Amino acid sequence: MDTHSAALESHAASLENAVDMSHHLSTLAKERRSSPLKSFAKYMFDPTVRSLAGGLPNEAYFPFETLSATTMHPDIYAPMGIEPGKAKSWLASLLGKSLDFIEVPKYAKKQGGLQLKNGLQYGAASGFQILSDFLTEWTKLAVPPAYANWEVLLCDGSTDAFHKVVELLCEKGDGILVESSTYPSALETGWPMGVRPVTTPIDDYGLVPEALEALLKGWCDEERKMRRPRVLYTVPIGQNPTGSTINDERRAAVYALAVKYDFIIVEDDPYWALNFGPYGISPPGSEIEKDKSKSEEEKNKAFLGLIGKSYLKNDTQGRVIRIDTFSKTIAPGCRLGWTTSNPQFAERLLRASETSTQQPSGPVQLLVAELVVLNWGMGGWIRWLRGLRGEYGRRRNWMIDELVKGFDIKVPKLQAITSASTGEDQMMPVRLEAFVKQAPSITSTGDNAWNEKMAGLSIGSTKTSKGIKILSFIPPSAGMFCWVAIHLENHGSLRGRSDFSSVSYQEESKELMQKIWVSLADKKVLVAPGWMFSGDGLRTGAPDDDSLTSSSSKSNGDENVDPRVGHFRLAFATLEETPMRQTMIDFCKVVNKFFE
Amino acid sequence: MDTHSAALESHAASLENAVDMSHHLSTLAKERRSSPLKSFAKYMFDPTVRSLAGGLPNEAYFPFETLSATTMHPDIYAPMGIEPGKAKSWLASLLGKSLDFIEVPKYAKKQGGLQLKNGLQYGAASGFQILSDFLTEWTKLAVPPAYANWEVLLCDGSTDAFHKVVELLCEKGDGILVESSTYPSALETGWPMGVRPVTTPIDDYGLVPEALEALLKGWCDEERKMRRPRVLYTVPIGQNPTGSTINDERRAAVYALAVKYDFIIVEDDPYWALNFGPYGISPPGSEIEKDKSKSEEEKNKAFLGLIGKSYLKNDTQGRVIRIDTFSKTIAPGCRLGWTTSNPQFAERLLRASETSTQQPSGPVQLLVAELVVLNWGMGGWIRWLRGLRGEYGRRRNWMIDELVKGFDIKVPKLQAITSASTGEDQMMPVRLEAFVKQAPSITSTGDNAWNEKMAGLSIGSTKTSKGIKILSFIPPSAGMFCWVAIHLENHGSLRGRSDFSSVSYQEESKELMQKIWVSLADKKVLVAPGWMFSGDGLRTGAPDDDSLTSSSSKSNGDENVDPRVGHFRLAFATLEETPMRQTMIDFCKVVNKFFE
Repeated sequence: MDTHSAALESHAASLENAVDMSHHLSTLAKERRSSPLKSFAKYMFDPTVRSLAGGLPNEAYFPFETLSATTMHPDIYAPMGIEPGKAKSWLASLLGKSLDFIEVPKYAKKQGGLQLKNGLQYGAASGFQILSDFLTEWTKLAVPPAYANWEVLLCDGSTDAFHKVVELLCEKGDGILVESSTYPSALETGWPMGVRPVTTPIDDYGLVPEALEALLKGWCDEERKMRRPRVLYTVPIGQNPTGSTINDERRAAVYALAVKYDFIIVEDDPYWALNFGPYGISPPGSEIEKDKSKSEEEKNKAFLGLIGKSYLKNDTQGRVIRIDTFSKTIAPGCRLGWTTSNPQFAERLLRASETSTQQPSGPVQLLVAELVVLNWGMGGWIRWLRGLRGEYGRRRNWMIDELVKGFDIKVPKLQAITSASTGEDQMMPVRLEAFVKQAPSITSTGDNAWNEKMAGLSIGSTKTSKGIKILSFIPPSAGMFCWVAIHLENHGSLRGRSDFSSVSYQEESKELMQKIWVSLADKKVLVAPGWMFSGDGLRTGAPDDDSLTSSSSKSNGDENVDPRVGHFRLAFATLEETPMRQTMIDFCKVVNKFFE
Repeated sequence: MDTHSAALESHAASLENAVDMSHHLSTLAKERRSSPLKSFAKYMFDPTVRSLAGGLPNEAYFPFETLSATTMHPDIYAPMGIEPGKAKSWLASLLGKSLDFIEVPKYAKKQGGLQLKNGLQYGAASGFQILSDFLTEWTKLAVPPAYANWEVLLCDGSTDAFHKVVELLCEKGDGILVESSTYPSALETGWPMGVRPVTTPIDDYGLVPEALEALLKGWCDEERKMRRPRVLYTVPIGQNPTGSTINDERRAAVYALAVKYDFIIVEDDPYWALNFGPYGISPPGSEIEKDKSKSEEEKNKAFLGLIGKSYLKNDTQGRVIRIDTFSKTIAPGCRLGWTTSNPQFAERLLRASETSTQQPSGPVQLLVAELVVLNWGMGGWIRWLRGLRGEYGRRRNWMIDELVKGFDIKVPKLQAITSASTGEDQMMPVRLEAFVKQAPSITSTGDNAWNEKMAGLSIGSTKTSKGIKILSFIPPSAGMFCWVAIHLENHGSLRGRSDFSSVSYQEESKELMQKIWVSLADKKVLVAPGWMFSGDGLRTGAPDDDSLTSSSSKSNGDENVDPRVGHFRLAFATLEETPMRQTMIDFCKVVNKFFE
C-alpha cells in the first residue's frame, strides 16, 4: 500500500456510519420481502451437498462453450492536451497491434478465472462479486463518500436505477425536485406513479442553491397541493441538456440544504469522466500528461484529482444516492451501471431487483469483468477514461470553434476565481454571445454585456455596442451537449415588444423556434429543441410532433420558460471532425440568415 | 410456402381482432407517456441527416471490436425416445466436430449481417427486429393465437415481464388469482404493491376449473375486502412446484371462465418445450423420431403437434398474456424473454420498458439472434428443443425410476382417455403411492387406494392391503420438478389422531417436516420444503430459516394447506445420472427410516 492509499484508508477509518434514513422509504419499499428461496443460499455453497432443491436449468444445455471478444487497449486514445497522432497505441494501431483478445470458457481453465457457465446461469441480484469489488475500490479512489458504511450495487443501467430509486423514495402525490431544464426520461419515470416534477433553476454554473432554498423555505403544502419534496434529482456534471457543471461552492451549499430540509440527493452522473475543463484554455492536467518524467500512475492520480467531484464527497449522513453507468464509458447496449448509497437503501434496491430485473445480463457482466477488471485492471481503466476525456474534449472544441467562427465571437480571457471551500483556483467559464452588427433601427447603448454574464443568461440587454444579441451559450466544460440560446426577442418580428407575457407573444415565439428548426432540417441539420427538456413537462414548439396533439402531453404551463429566448441542444458526441465542422458552418449560416 | 404453412395463413386470415380490454389497464399503465425524444426517430433513419440531436455516445469508443462464441449444433442432443449414444452429433462431438464459431463484427462485413455497434449502442425498447420477427414466426407455428392482431414483445426475462404485467393490470388492494401452490417470486412481485394472492386449487391435472368457478361465483367483495380478482397467474405446463400439467379440457374450461368472469389469464410457461408425456410409457412422438424414413422437417412438425399447447390457442378475445423465456432453452443469465398479447397491452408494456429496463441487453440479443436466428434457423431451433426435451425427459426418468425402486412402488398400466374437445386419445398420468408394510398396530382394510387416485391426492385413505401410505406423487409429464407428498398422518406420532385442525397437530406436523428435512440435509441431500410454495404466503416449517423470524413473513393462515400431508419439491434438472440416482437412493432411505 503506497502513502496515498494509506492516507485514504486512514481517512475512511475515521468516518461515521450513515444516519437513519428509513423515514424516507416509500410504502412500496417498506413492503418488499426477501424471497424465501434465499434461505437456501448458505447450503448451496457447500460443495458436498447434492441439491434437488434449486430450480436451475442444467448448464450442460447452455449452447455457448466460450464467449470471446477482440478489445481495445486502454491507452488507444490520447488524453486531453495530447495530440491524437502522438499517443503510443495510436501508432500501435497503425501496425495492427492495437487489439487484444479476451475469452471466457464455460469451465475455467485456470484458478480464479471467470467461467461462462456462471454468466449463463441464474445469479445473485447483486451481480458478480468481482465487479462490485472493483467498483467499490474505484469509488474509494475516485469519489470517496464522507461516511463509512456505503455500499455499491450493480443495476441494469441508469434508467433502471432511477426507476427503482423513485419507487424507493416517492409516494403517489409527491413532488420531486428537478432542474428547470432536465433529462425528459427522468420525468417520465415518476409521472405514471403520480410523482410530479417541481422545478428549481439551473444556470451556467449548475443548480442555483439560493433559488432552491427560496423554493423550500417558502413551501406551502396547501398552495402547492403536495408536501415539500424530499428528493432532488440532479445531473451535476455536463448536465443534460444545459451542459452546465456545478462548482464546489454550490455543491456544498446544496448538500447543506439537503441536511437542513431533509431531502435525498439523487446524483445521476453519466458524464463524470468527460470533464474537460473550460473552453479556450490549456486543458487542466495537460502539463502533467505532456510531462515525460511522470509515470502512468502519477498521471492517473492527477486525473482523479482533477475530475473527482461528487456529492458523495459532501455526504456525511448517507443522504446521497449516486447513479453511475457504463453507458458512456463502455457501451450503453450493455445496460450495466451501479448505485452508491447507504446500506439500508442498497438493501431495499436489491429487493426491488429480485422481483423485476433479477440481475444484470450475465454475459455482459462477464465481458465487462474480463475486459475492465482482469485485462485492463484499475490502472488501465483510469487510462481508458483519460483517453475518453481527451476524445470528447476535442469534439467539444470542434463544435465551439465553429460557433465562435460562424458568429464572429470574441472569446474573453478566463479569470481564475479562488474557491472559498477548497482554496483552489478555479477557472470560471463565461457565456459567449453572438451579435448582428447591421441592426438598422436600434440605437446602440454602449452597455457591456460581459458584466452581466456571471449572473447567467442576460435577458433584456439586447442593445450593445456590439449590435444585437442573437445567440449565446456557455461552452460546456463537460459532457456531450452545448445548450444554445436563441434571442428571439431580437428577431425582427418581436423586437421592441414588451408584451412577452401575452399569449400572442408566446405563440409567435414558438412559431419562430419552429421556423428555425425547419430551416435547419431543410439543410439536413437535426438539433434537439429546448421544449423537450422542460422540467415542467411543457411540450410545445416542436414541429410536426405526434405527441403534441395527444391529450397526455397537455401541460399546466411552465414558469421557468421565458418566451423571449428559445434553446437548441447540440450534441458533439456523434459526428466526426469533418462532418461536424461542416454541419456547424451550416448551423451558423441558418441562424445568421434567420436574424437578417 | 408448403401446404401446412398455407393452411396456417389461411386460418389466421379468418380471425377477428382482439376485443377492447382497456378497462383492465391500471391507473399507472394508463398514465404512462411516450418519451418526447421518440419524435426524432423518423428523422434518424434518413442517412443524409447530420444529427446533433441525439444523446448517443460515439460508437468508435465502445472497446469491443468483435464479439464471438463457440456454440453447439442444434442436433447435439438426442430427442425423446432415442438413445443418447445414437444421436448423430453425439458421434460428431467425439470427433471434435460438434462446435460452431459465431462472430459479430462491430461493422458488418456482409450485407444484412448483424453489427456489434448496434448491440452496443442504445436501441429500441422493443428490441432487435430480427428477434421479434423470428419469435412472431415461431408463435404462428407453435402456439398460434385465436385472434388476428396479437403482438410479440421482447423483455428482460419472465420475472421482468411479470413485474410489468402486474403493474399493467393491478391496483393497490386488488387480488390476483394464483394456484394454491405456486412460484414464490410471483407472489413477491405483487406483494409490496398491495396486490394479494387469492389461491385457487391445483391438483395432479392442473388448475381445477370447478373450484375456480366456485370461488368466482361466490365472491363477496365485502367479505373478502377486495373486488373480484381480474387476473389469473398460472404456470400451465410442468407447474412449479407441483409439476402438474393442465389438459385440454381444463384449459378450455378455464378460458371460458375468463370470458364469463372477465379476467385476464397470465400464462407463464417456461417449461413449454420440456413436455415429455407421462412416465412409464413409450414417449409420445418417439415412433416418429425413430423412423428413418421421416425427414427432420416431418419430425419438427410432429414435435410441435405434440407439445403445442397454450391458452393462446383458446384466446379468441385477446385476454391472454403469454410469458415466454429463453431461460430454460438457451440460458437464464441472458435475461431475455418475450410476451405475446393484444396490441394495446403490448404498447403499454413497451412504455413501461422505456422508463425502466430500456431494452434487453444488446450483446445478448446479438448472441441469441446470431446463434438461433442466423446460425440455427427455425428448423435448427425446433431440433434444439427436441434434444432438450429428450435430455430433461431422461432426467425425469432417472428420478422416478429411483423413487419407484426405493419405495417398491407398483406402476400401473396407463389408460388412454379420449379428449372431449379434441377427440384425441390422451394418456392420463396417475399418482404413484408408497406404503410401509410393517405397520404393527394398524388393521388392513382392503381398500384399493388406486381407485381414488384420479380424484387427486387421496388424503384419509391411510390403511390399505398394501400397508400404510407414507409417500405419494404424480410423475411429472413436463418441467423440472417432482412434488412429493409425505403422509405425516401415518407417522407414528400422528397416526390415528383426528384433531388435525388443532394448533398442536399443525405444530407437530411442521416439526415432523423439519425433522425429515434435517435428516436429509445431514445426508447432504437438499430438497425444497413445500411451505415455500404456498400461494397464501404461509411460510412455516423451514428449519433454521431467517425469514421465519422476521415480521415480514407473518402469514394470515393458509386454507389450502392440509397439516396431514407435507411436501418436498425435488428438481431433476441439475444432477448428472450417477449422483442423481445415488441421491435418490439416499432420499428413499431417509424417508423410509423416518416412518419406521
